[in-house]
Amino acid sequence: MAHVEEAPAAMIDRVASLLESFVGERPLTLAELARRSHVPRSSAHRILQRLVELGWVERKEFTYTLGVRMFELGSQFTRRRTVPRAAVAVMAELHRRRGLTVYLSMLVGAEIMHLERIGSWPSASGQWGAGARQPVPLTAPGRALLATLSPDRWPELRFGPAPTPYSIQSRSQLVRDLDRIRDRGGVAVDAQGIHRGVTVVAAPITTMDDDGHFALSVCGPTRALDLGATITEVRNAAATVWRVANGVPTLRPLPQPSVELQLANGGPA
Amino acid sequence: MAHVEEAPAAMIDRVASLLESFVGERPLTLAELARRSHVPRSSAHRILQRLVELGWVERKEFTYTLGVRMFELGSQFTRRRTVPRAAVAVMAELHRRRGLTVYLSMLVGAEIMHLERIGSWPSASGQWGAGARQPVPLTAPGRALLATLSPDRWPELRFGPAPTPYSIQSRSQLVRDLDRIRDRGGVAVDAQGIHRGVTVVAAPITTMDDDGHFALSVCGPTRALDLGATITEVRNAAATVWRVANGVPTLRPLPQPSVELQLANGGPA
Repeated sequence: MAHVEEAPAAMIDRVASLLESFVGERPLTLAELARRSHVPRSSAHRILQRLVELGWVERKEFTYTLGVRMFELGSQFTRRRTVPRAAVAVMAELHRRRGLTVYLSMLVGAEIMHLERIGSWPSASGQWGAGARQPVPLTAPGRALLATLSPDRWPELRFGPAPTPYSIQSRSQLVRDLDRIRDRGGVAVDAQGIHRGVTVVAAPITTMDDDGHFALSVCGPTRALDLGATITEVRNAAATVWRVANGVPTLRPLPQPSVELQLANGGPA
Repeated sequence: MAHVEEAPAAMIDRVASLLESFVGERPLTLAELARRSHVPRSSAHRILQRLVELGWVERKEFTYTLGVRMFELGSQFTRRRTVPRAAVAVMAELHRRRGLTVYLSMLVGAEIMHLERIGSWPSASGQWGAGARQPVPLTAPGRALLATLSPDRWPELRFGPAPTPYSIQSRSQLVRDLDRIRDRGGVAVDAQGIHRGVTVVAAPITTMDDDGHFALSVCGPTRALDLGATITEVRNAAATVWRVANGVPTLRPLPQPSVELQLANGGPA
C-alpha cells in the first residue's frame, strides 16, 4: 500500500471534486460528474462505486445523488457548536410568536451560510434553505456581523450584480449602512436589497470562545412588517441565544411550549 | 499518477474512516482520530491536512472537527428531495398551531434518521436533532413506516435494551402495535416507549417515485398531550405534505405566513 501513501492529496482531491460536483438541484450522470469534477471517467466510476458502498452517494438507475451518510456527517457540524444548539428553542419561540421565518446564519469567508431555518418564506427552495450562501454585503446577517468586526478583520468583499435597485452596491453605501446598524444597537435591516418585497432584520451573536460569527435574523414581507417591534424582538432573541450559549443566567423565564398561552397573555402585537 | 488509479478504494476508505470517526460530540485530537479510524498516524495527519485545506475539516490548536463544507454538502441531501422541501411550510405551521416539536424522519436501514426538527422538546441535544438515529421498533415514525411495508420489505429488526418499561421489546409486541396503527388509519403512537414522559405521534408519507420512506411526527409531554386532536393534526399534516410533494391540488388553503391572522380567524383551538 506504499503507493497509496505517496499521493494522498491527489486521491483526496478526486474524491472531493466528485462530491463537490453534486452542488445543485438534480441527480447527475457519470458523464456529467466526470466533466464537472475533471476526474477521468473510468476513475470517477470506480470512486463513485466505492462511495455508493459507503452510503455517501446514492445511485438510482443511471444517476447519482449525495447519500444519507453525507447528511448525517454534515449535521455534526451544527450539533457540536454551542450557538446553533442554544438557538433551536429561541428560534422556534420567535417563529411561534411572530409567524415570520427565522434564520440562523454564519460568516463563511465573504458569504453568509444559513445553518437553520424555521418557516418557508420567501421561498421553500434551496436558495433560502440550510446550506445556502448569500454574499455578505447584500444581506442583513452579513452586515450585522461586519459591524462587529474591525475592518482589518473583514473578509475580501465583492460587490457583484445587484439583485434589486435597493441592493448595497459599493463600499461607501456599505459603510453608511454600518453606521445605521450601530445606531440601532447592532441590528441590521435589509429592505428589498436581497429580494424584492422582502425585509430581513438581523442581529449578531458573538461567542466568547471564537467558535464562529453567527447571526439570527427574521424575514418578512416589507409591506406588512412592523419594523420597530421586529428589531426589538430580533435583538432580544439574539441576546437570549448568546446568554444560553455562554451559560449566563437568563433575565426572563425560558420560552413556554405553548403559543396559545402567550397569545392569551397578550404576547405578540 | 498511475499508482493512484490502482488503489482508489483503499484511499477512499481511509478518508471515509477518518471523517466517520468524527461522529460524536466533541473535537478530537490526531491520536484519537488515528485510533478510531485505524488509519496510521502519519497517513492520518497528511489526509487531515488536505481535508483542512478543502474546508471539510477544521483544525483548532490540537483538535479537529468537521468543517462547514461538510455541512454544506450534507444539506444537499434534503434540499433536492421533494418530501423534505414540501414539508418545510407544513411543519412550521403545525409547530405554530400546537407549540409541539415537529420532526421529519426517514427510514435508513433498521433505523429512523431525523432530517428536520422544529422545536427543542424533549431536548435540544444531538440525540433528538437532525442527523440523529433511533431504532425502528422503538419509535413512532419507525412503526408508522413499518405498517406501510409488507414484512418481506422490512429491514432486519433488532430488539435491543429497552429505554423504558413501556418500550416495544419483541416482534409479537410490534405486530400488535402495527394492528393498532392500522386501526388508527396509519398513525403510530409511542407513549413513553422511547423516553419517559414523552409521547410521539407519527404518520407516514409515501412518495410515488420511491424516493425514500418518510414520516412526520409530533412530540409532546405524555401527561398534557391531547392525543385525539394530535392524531388528527399529524395525519392531516402528513397528507398535506404528500399532496404538495406529489403536485396534487390541496383541499384547503396553504398555510399563511402570519400566525396572528390565523388566530384572529379562530384557527387553532
